[in-house]
Amino acid sequence: MAKKAKESAEERLIARYFRPLAKHPGAFGLADDAAAIAPPAGCDLVLTTDGVIAGVHFLPDDAPRDVARKALRMNLSDLAAKGAAPLGFLLSLALPVKTKASWIAGFAAGLADDSEHYACPLLGGDTDHTVGPIMASITAFGAVPRGKMVRRSTAKPGDVVVVTGTIGDAALGVKLRRKKSLGKSWRLKPKMTSHLLRRYLLPEPRNALAEAVLHHASAAMDISDGLAGDLGKLCRASAVAATIDVMRVPLSEAAQAAIASARDLWQTVLTGGDDYEIILTLPPDRLSAFRAAAARAGIAATEIGRIEKGEGARFECHGKPLAYKRASYSHF
Amino acid sequence: MAKKAKESAEERLIARYFRPLAKHPGAFGLADDAAAIAPPAGCDLVLTTDGVIAGVHFLPDDAPRDVARKALRMNLSDLAAKGAAPLGFLLSLALPVKTKASWIAGFAAGLADDSEHYACPLLGGDTDHTVGPIMASITAFGAVPRGKMVRRSTAKPGDVVVVTGTIGDAALGVKLRRKKSLGKSWRLKPKMTSHLLRRYLLPEPRNALAEAVLHHASAAMDISDGLAGDLGKLCRASAVAATIDVMRVPLSEAAQAAIASARDLWQTVLTGGDDYEIILTLPPDRLSAFRAAAARAGIAATEIGRIEKGEGARFECHGKPLAYKRASYSHF
Repeated sequence: MAKKAKESAEERLIARYFRPLAKHPGAFGLADDAAAIAPPAGCDLVLTTDGVIAGVHFLPDDAPRDVARKALRMNLSDLAAKGAAPLGFLLSLALPVKTKASWIAGFAAGLADDSEHYACPLLGGDTDHTVGPIMASITAFGAVPRGKMVRRSTAKPGDVVVVTGTIGDAALGVKLRRKKSLGKSWRLKPKMTSHLLRRYLLPEPRNALAEAVLHHASAAMDISDGLAGDLGKLCRASAVAATIDVMRVPLSEAAQAAIASARDLWQTVLTGGDDYEIILTLPPDRLSAFRAAAARAGIAATEIGRIEKGEGARFECHGKPLAYKRASYSHF
Repeated sequence: MAKKAKESAEERLIARYFRPLAKHPGAFGLADDAAAIAPPAGCDLVLTTDGVIAGVHFLPDDAPRDVARKALRMNLSDLAAKGAAPLGFLLSLALPVKTKASWIAGFAAGLADDSEHYACPLLGGDTDHTVGPIMASITAFGAVPRGKMVRRSTAKPGDVVVVTGTIGDAALGVKLRRKKSLGKSWRLKPKMTSHLLRRYLLPEPRNALAEAVLHHASAAMDISDGLAGDLGKLCRASAVAATIDVMRVPLSEAAQAAIASARDLWQTVLTGGDDYEIILTLPPDRLSAFRAAAARAGIAATEIGRIEKGEGARFECHGKPLAYKRASYSHF
């Protein structure tokens, strides 16, 4: 042919925005069809995948920087709950034709920040045009000592139930995001409103606790679909029951204020999604060591209940069972 | 709470349709947040991700069974071209709320067939509702001896250029799919038409040749965006030139017939996408061993040109350079 074959627009997009994030040698500078990695000696590779779709998991006017960070953090949260140290991630990005370069630049910048912060380099990916909304799907890789991935299915009667951080902030945050006037009816101070909005926009995955989870937890998972529903899943997988003291569920100052004004929000807090905290079970004699590790990491770790024989997760308030309509956010 | 927490609709969907495909012990029966695998001793894990979107990569009335198989095979093709043996895959599925159970059942059935056939079990995944079209994104994992992944960037002057199978069938197939009357103007016999349609609908990844690629190729990639453009990428990555004899590019009987009726289709054949054949470069003394391996696998392997010093992929016809408008299908 007469003309020299030039880089395609897709190659240019990748080179410009994403190659700087591909610092792992096995990413081959994103110039190959595949990446190659090996887990550290004696380790398994932990695999998890999660994604965000505009209009479903984020709002179209969310900053692209935060969308990218949320998508990566959702996956980092899974790795943390499994006791795994991040190794890297693949990105699959579907963009409408009309997506602005500034959106892509912002998205890549957010991804670069968190990729650096969490030591989780980009390994490869796939970009496509779509006739639908923006979608970013991430597959993240972590390492755990062989056979030691912390599972959902290994909680034992007698274990204590612990959650990290605070519960329900993001579920309140998305309500505020959709209806700003709620801040007033919940009598929130401005900084409380921004706390809840922030918690929805940007999860804080507990990767600093992954090693403590690995060493001390009998079972764990991250809370992404609501405390009640996700604890129910853990109980089903482990064939155990749990009794939770609702009064011990850790709430932020903002969530406490909102509930004080609108008691029904208890249900939102316990069953709403997007917490990205870890729920874990521990033999009682491991509790103090785990708490010490959490304190060192500056992350709250709160005992909220106990694993028992039986089935189902029971939430009690002053010894009486609490009733709510729906246990969990479900996509189906 | 009063009622026992029940499985969510999402959990039921996964259990019913996808758990039967999760035969790898590290998939934990899809009952955990993550999977855990280890590459065989002395091996790297090869990672690749590719997906399909309704209206972009497949047509909304394609059979769900074939959509699933195409999505998996696109990834298997990448593994084959990198010399990797499949280990398993993750599936990320975004479905409109109105998706029928029969569509999901068909999709899962197709995935089950190919997962079994290619010994590539489901390891985990993510299902979501979307406000856009159906999207299935797959991340596939393979194994190669440590440091031996076959790259794009390692072709050397003096190497011969080989392609597997036949080129351009799928690009002609999608034209036929979109405008049925073309079969008549191209004077195709009915079985030629069905051959081309089939080649678009369902790639035939060359995993049976992965080991021969690993042992003999100096560089390789799969052809998904057209022979001309993908060879251009290989040349750029390797900092070499290639001269291809167009008359040696292997064509199916159907593609030959179509070109005989409409000479311009040459361009479609060389630059259209979806071939899912392998283009590889080999030192000349490896050619006969590779050909023997291909013959044993029942897959055509055709020498089409030579790697040289310089840059760019040149296509020649009877010694004269061939001109065409666009080197490659690009999503951007």
